This record gives sequence, structure tokens and C-alpha cells, in this order.
Amino acid sequence: MLVLDLVGTFVFALSGGAAGVRQRLDLFGLFVVSFVAGNLGGVIRDLLIGSIPPAAIQDWRYAAASVLAGVAAFLWYPAIRKLHGHILILDAAGLALFAVSGTQKALDFGMNPFMAPLLGMLTGIGGGIVRDLLVGEVPWVLRSELYAVAALAGALVIVTGHLLGLPLTLTTIAGAALCFGLRFLAIRRGWRLPVARSRVTPATEEGTTADE
Amino acid sequence: MLVLDLVGTFVFALSGGAAGVRQRLDLFGLFVVSFVAGNLGGVIRDLLIGSIPPAAIQDWRYAAASVLAGVAAFLWYPAIRKLHGHILILDAAGLALFAVSGTQKALDFGMNPFMAPLLGMLTGIGGGIVRDLLVGEVPWVLRSELYAVAALAGALVIVTGHLLGLPLTLTTIAGAALCFGLRFLAIRRGWRLPVARSRVTPATEEGTTADE
Amino acid sequence: MLVLDLVGTFVFALSGGAAGVRQRLDLFGLFVVSFVAGNLGGVIRDLLIGSIPPAAIQDWRYAAASVLAGVAAFLWYPAIRKLHGHILILDAAGLALFAVSGTQKALDFGMNPFMAPLLGMLTGIGGGIVRDLLVGEVPWVLRSELYAVAALAGALVIVTGHLLGLPLTLTTIAGAALCFGLRFLAIRRGWRLPVARSRVTPATEEGTTADE
Repeated sequence: MLVLDLVGTFVFALSGGAAGVRQRLDLFGLFVVSFVAGNLGGVIRDLLIGSIPPAAIQDWRYAAASVLAGVAAFLWYPAIRKLHGHILILDAAGLALFAVSGTQKALDFGMNPFMAPLLGMLTGIGGGIVRDLLVGEVPWVLRSELYAVAALAGALVIVTGHLLGLPLTLTTIAGAALCFGLRFLAIRRGWRLPVARSRVTPATEEGTTADE
Repeated sequence: MLVLDLVGTFVFALSGGAAGVRQRLDLFGLFVVSFVAGNLGGVIRDLLIGSIPPAAIQDWRYAAASVLAGVAAFLWYPAIRKLHGHILILDAAGLALFAVSGTQKALDFGMNPFMAPLLGMLTGIGGGIVRDLLVGEVPWVLRSELYAVAALAGALVIVTGHLLGLPLTLTTIAGAALCFGLRFLAIRRGWRLPVARSRVTPATEEGTTADE
Repeated sequence: MLVLDLVGTFVFALSGGAAGVRQRLDLFGLFVVSFVAGNLGGVIRDLLIGSIPPAAIQDWRYAAASVLAGVAAFLWYPAIRKLHGHILILDAAGLALFAVSGTQKALDFGMNPFMAPLLGMLTGIGGGIVRDLLVGEVPWVLRSELYAVAALAGALVIVTGHLLGLPLTLTTIAGAALCFGLRFLAIRRGWRLPVARSRVTPATEEGTTADE
């Protein structure tokens, strides 16, 4: 389990390192963004459920996995870019793992079964959101193909299993598989959630944003 | 009291949903920004005063109010834009409520009477700040008409009443009325705090920002 | 010690106030950004190590130092800009102090000696990161001359001294001197960490960012 968790951290941290290279951050800046991308979802969850200090702050291996990912992004960014498609698949696996383990941890700390899935989803998407804020972009997970929805779906399986008293191993595998499968299909087929039409001309829109 | 709190959450979440529509986020992205706008001020306050897990994480109704606001922004954004002036009034009411209840909660948790008003103000403005960061804008409450000042004024009434031992109902109503009234007049009359003149030509300014 | 801490807060808050003036925030917006720049590194550290409520929330003097810095930035921004070089030196002193005291506090709260230096570094750089996010810039400390590295070096001295059982006064002075010296030399000589070359043409790069 810990090995899986560290692999998930590494994959997420790699996305942070790659974003840092694109923004021309220095080597140390890469480490910071890698750590944030790999761990901040879990850190925020731990603060919210009262698991203080958070696991990623207590256990040096999470930081080590993040630094390794930062070094990899520094040395092999062009190769990582070419493997982009494969890394998206690994990222979907990391998302599934984090969503499922985050939900389970929230339940273990006595969270309401209606709110635990949101904490699981946050574990999966929180690191990516703060990563994008650090490099000055509108968070990509808020616009991507079923990213947060897939995390939420996996988390809901865990809570349903918890309420029905099903064995944990079974619901963990089912939840992770659902999340991974949804995200995988969404990437392959370009599934997206609908976007509201604002039905406003750009000129008016800008005026409003400015004076609001 | 809870009803008022949920109404405040809904109004703030609506502002988050509208910001999400302007940024062309998908439906789920709207929910995230709505939740953030409606609840993050209170969540940060709760983390800081040690009320863990925060109320908005424990009680599913805050999330439900946020999702409702996201759906409303998705379906009726053009109508919401037309009601902009009315919504600003509702938003001022939400601000008054959050500033007053946030200060009271900080005092209940034993915060220093000099710092409790800052926590009340944070309750009122925190959600809007993170909302604007998520959609890539410099936080609007840092530039708007007496927004944070109105929240602080309402919060100070609560603390003054607390130190003088006045009845809670009285100070709550007085604090909320002061905050709402200040903000309402500021919107109507365009009151703003002064902005420092930088007295620097744009060219020099840019050079400095770049090499700093 | 407290006096030094408040001086560090004031210097950091001054950088926040100056950033706020450049962004044309109003007077109150300046106070918010000043408080964030001066205190958020320590506040985040305190949340992570379980020192709740954080010192900057409990003790009104930190807020007072921040407001003073905001007023100074409002009144004397042009003069502060001219003193930029001197303020960078003061800022290096603040960084050294925060890195060293942050590491010590993390050790006092039982943090793992491998992770305590990261918390010390966070104390030094956290305020600057959130300051830059608030005014819409990619955090400067992620690109600057050995900023985070100097903080980490000072923090490592504290932990090494702690593990070897050396007297606290000695390691505090040595750690602060190393951090300040590194940062001072880096400013004077323009030392920077290497930046990864992305070896991608701008056109391709943009396409990738867009569809990713």
C-alpha cells in the first residue's frame, strides 16, 4: 500500500516538475512545485480531518519521491514530453489510488459519509490545483476530461461499501477500477462535461469583469 | 441562525459559480469554485482557531447549498448577470452575517479580542479571495468598495460588545447592520479607500518588476 | 528573540505592501498582502505541526507590525523603491531568522529531523509565495537567486546541531549566518540555480499547453 502511495506521489510530482520546467523555474523551484503537486491534496485533507501533522510532513519518503520526480523532470523533460500519453495513464492510476485511499482515511477519522467522498476527491485533485496556481494557470483539473468526476465516482464506491459493510479490499479495488476506467475512457474518447454558454459578447463581458 | 448561514453560503457560492462560467469551467469545475467561494473563509477560520474538522466539512448542507448555487449559475448565468445589482445587495448581507458569526466563533474558541475581528473579516472575505485566485484574477475584495473594511467594522462591534458584556443578540444585530450599511452605501456612492500613487513611469516599473 | 521575530515580520510585510502598491490595491488591500507576506510562512508551519492557533493569530503584535509595514508602503513607496538594495539585505536577514526559528519550532513539536528543515524553509518562503499569488505573479522565490536554498542550508545547520547535541545558541547563530551569507553572496554575484532547457520551439510548446 505504501509503495503504491509513493508511486502515485511520484507520478503527480512528475507533472509538477514538468509544469515547473515549462515556467523556467530553477532546479529548486522544480522541487517545490513537485512536492506541492505530489502531496498537497493529502496534506490539505489531513489538515481538514485533524490528522496533524500530515503524513507527507511526517514521513520523509514522500519528500524523497517528490525530489526524485523533480530531478527527473529537470534532466529528461523532452523525453517526458514524448511520453505524455503514457504519463496521463499513470496519472489516472495515481488519481484512482489517491481518491480511494483519501476517502478511506476520511472515514477512519470519523468524517460524515456524505462528506468523505469530497475529501477523497480533494486528495486526488488538490495537488494539481495548487500546482497550477503556483505556475500561474487556471487549474487544469477544473476543465479537463472528467478528472474530478472520476475521482468522486471512485470515492462514492468506497463510501457505499462502507455503509453496506462490504469487505474493504473489494470496495477499494472496485472504487479504484471505476475511477481509473472512467478517466481512461474520458481521455481516449475526449469526454467532457458541458460548459455553460454565457451568451454575452466578449466586449460586454470584459466591461463587466472590469467594473465588477 | 443555520438557515441564515446557509443562505449566506448560497449567495457567496453563486458568485463563485458565475466566476466559473465566465472562465468557461465545466459543470464540475463550477461546483468546486462555488464550494470554495461559499465556504473557504469559514474553513480557513476553523483551521486557524482549532475547530477541526471545519463545520463546512462536517455538515453536508453547506456542500449541498454550494452545489445548488453551481447548478443555478450553470443554468441561468445570463439572468444572474442581469440581477447583478440585486446580488451585490445579497452579497453584502452574506458578508455582514459571516463577519459577525465568524467573530463570535473566534471568541467562543478563546481567541484574543484583538485578533478575533481579523478572523471574522477573514470569514467574510476568504472565500472570495480564493475564488478569484482559482479563476486567475487578482482578488477583487482587495480593490473593491470598502468590502473588507465593512467586514472589519461589523466584527469590531461584536468584540466591543463582548468586552463590555452587552447582550449577544444586540451586538450581533448592531454589527451586522453596520457592516451591511457601510457596504451598501459604499456600493451606492462608489466609496473607495485611497490607492497609493507609485509615481513611477510604467517603463521603469516594468524593468524593476522583471529584475526584482 | 521576539523583537527579532517582529523585525523579520515587518521587513517581509514591507515587501508585501510594496507589491500591493504596484498592483494598485487600496489601503486595506495593502494591509492584507502585508500580513500575508509577513506571517503566512509561520502560520502554515504552525498548522502543519499542530501548533494551533498559530502564533501570528494569537499575538496581536504580528498583525500590528504588518499594518505598520502596510502604512509605510502606502506613504513612502517611492522612497522604499530607492532603498530596494538595502531592503534586499534586510530581507535576507529576515529569511535567515525565519528559517532558523521555524526549524527549531518544528523540532520542538517533535517533527522528524529529515522533515524539520523543510518546515524551516517553508517558514522563510511561504509568505512570499502566497504574496505573489495574491498579486497575480508566479512566485518570485521559485526563480530567485538561491532564495529557498539559502533557507534550507540554514535549516540543515539547526538539525545537524540538534542531532549532534550541540548548544542551541551556537547552531542558531551558525545557521542564520550561513543562510544570510549565502543569500547575500547570491544577490551580489547573481548566483542562480540552473534552469532546465525545454528544447521545444515556442509554437509546439503553446500547442501542448493548450491541449494538455
